[in-house]
Amino acid sequence: MKKLIFLTLFIMGISQAKSLEQKPLVIASQGSFFVGGSVLKNDEGKSFHGDHAYVYYQKPMNAKKLPIVLLHGIHQATKTWESTPDGREGYANIFLRRGFSIYNFTTPRRGNASRSLDEALIKPVFDEESWFVKWRIGIYPNYFKGVQFSKDKESLNQFLRQITPNIGKIDFELNTNILANFFDELKGGIMMAHSQGVMHTWKLLPKTKNVKAVIALEGGGYFSFVKRPQTEASEGVEYIMVDEKTFKSFTKMPILLIYGDNIPTTKSNVPELDIWRIRLDLAKKWANAVNEAGGDVSLIHLPELKIYGNTHFLMSDLNNVEIADLISEWLKEKGLDK
Amino acid sequence: MKKLIFLTLFIMGISQAKSLEQKPLVIASQGSFFVGGSVLKNDEGKSFHGDHAYVYYQKPMNAKKLPIVLLHGIHQATKTWESTPDGREGYANIFLRRGFSIYNFTTPRRGNASRSLDEALIKPVFDEESWFVKWRIGIYPNYFKGVQFSKDKESLNQFLRQITPNIGKIDFELNTNILANFFDELKGGIMMAHSQGVMHTWKLLPKTKNVKAVIALEGGGYFSFVKRPQTEASEGVEYIMVDEKTFKSFTKMPILLIYGDNIPTTKSNVPELDIWRIRLDLAKKWANAVNEAGGDVSLIHLPELKIYGNTHFLMSDLNNVEIADLISEWLKEKGLDK
Repeated sequence: MKKLIFLTLFIMGISQAKSLEQKPLVIASQGSFFVGGSVLKNDEGKSFHGDHAYVYYQKPMNAKKLPIVLLHGIHQATKTWESTPDGREGYANIFLRRGFSIYNFTTPRRGNASRSLDEALIKPVFDEESWFVKWRIGIYPNYFKGVQFSKDKESLNQFLRQITPNIGKIDFELNTNILANFFDELKGGIMMAHSQGVMHTWKLLPKTKNVKAVIALEGGGYFSFVKRPQTEASEGVEYIMVDEKTFKSFTKMPILLIYGDNIPTTKSNVPELDIWRIRLDLAKKWANAVNEAGGDVSLIHLPELKIYGNTHFLMSDLNNVEIADLISEWLKEKGLDK
Repeated sequence: MKKLIFLTLFIMGISQAKSLEQKPLVIASQGSFFVGGSVLKNDEGKSFHGDHAYVYYQKPMNAKKLPIVLLHGIHQATKTWESTPDGREGYANIFLRRGFSIYNFTTPRRGNASRSLDEALIKPVFDEESWFVKWRIGIYPNYFKGVQFSKDKESLNQFLRQITPNIGKIDFELNTNILANFFDELKGGIMMAHSQGVMHTWKLLPKTKNVKAVIALEGGGYFSFVKRPQTEASEGVEYIMVDEKTFKSFTKMPILLIYGDNIPTTKSNVPELDIWRIRLDLAKKWANAVNEAGGDVSLIHLPELKIYGNTHFLMSDLNNVEIADLISEWLKEKGLDK
């Protein structure tokens, strides 16, 4: 095993701040706290607090009624929504500027919520080249033509360092129980979820009435059906079967699904890409099924709007403001931006 | 082993925000980035980026010339400086309000910088009762009389959940190399460090000329001497011996050491407390030694100013604004708040 020391120190924040000609952010309050969690006691009665979630929040002056809860995907934490890998503003800033209170959520056993009741052996995993393809930046080491990802070396370096391990198993029940209580305490909020965060959302919706809208960026699994869909997707992973009552919970709020570019239209021999063809097809079938049951699901496949080159990380892509504009339009149309 | 489920959901941020009658924060820019780190390659040439630090920054309008770098202690990350356990503003907000740019730093292998080149088996450690005493909140489960720590159950719950594991060894050389480069890129900054962050600072100062001042909150070790001090402290842990040139690096900037209350004045039979008697004595000897060599070290032991009840976590204690005022006075006196 070779170790390549590579002590970079291009400080995005320092260089970037100079070039930003943005209006200042006016924040009424900001801070952080933990939600949920358990206490484990050993035989001597000594205690261990763990399995909580971490939330960093910012509230603008005159905030809109419904806050946005930001929920990261697999291997990610709050960083997903902060500065982009090339140092521009992420959705934590952008939607704050647009008047929403922001709750940037980290699921238990990760990041600032790493104190885990589960045990884990954490060691280097050489998976980055594979994520580069799965996250549709390109076929490693080549970038897709016109990809909305900065090709300078430092941006990829920053992006890969966003990856952060889970300390133990990813427990959907644990995570969504905490999320459900959190939305109940908020007395209503908009879920903006990415990737595995979208999988969490489908598990969450049957547990609370307080998710008032869902913005699902590149969701990958746990699409729920009452009637088995015609799909190449595998049951139990990409989709699950639920009862009618559970399914009804998906019809109670407006839902926006967004998918990016470079999703194959016919069977691809690159499995990391082909799975996105299957997922997009499944998402369309799910949207139809929910709408037939009285729901309100919109699906945007960006290339159909002539928006090209988006990766799996829409919210930090080079055109993330353009995508944010689409989201804002939808929020307005649904009356969610009051 | 008994598991006590304890699904709390007192959301500090929500309840707190209502009661705050603060002026809004006006922020010129904010975001996050990674600094430093290595790339490990396996035999197949596949890569793993790890051992970077994570930094969250906020810059106020018309920021003062020197930013403040916040460096957490053992088992802590950025949360240390954000909201206090009882939901008030921490030093990340307070010094931002006072006009300083803030860089809230997480050392490699922790929190949002958890991708580690080291291997680690992470599992529950039943150490909380011991930290309660070491961090001088009281003799568990009793609080010290007059302690500056909110005695409601939820505050302790929030406080204990701040604890977050290190993914692998704490590597002082790795961490301080990254910090030194970071201060060099900043072209000057003020280090505000807590506990083990102070130990990092003494290892850092010989590596850069760009730490322009040090605010050391409850530092515990690696005090450096040329001439062996008369102390009960153990060499190699609480203090180390260095050459004259290294020692000189401590004389190049103003340094403020602050210690709280409930430090025994005579030998105590509670070792978790007695160590603080030894450390405070050592800190005084170190301050004298650095000053004799031409340095500018001030030491505040709060009870000597009739400020009582402070724990090891001065920056989040109930009187944290009063302590911040002392720090601001010192910054002003040293011309560091321009």
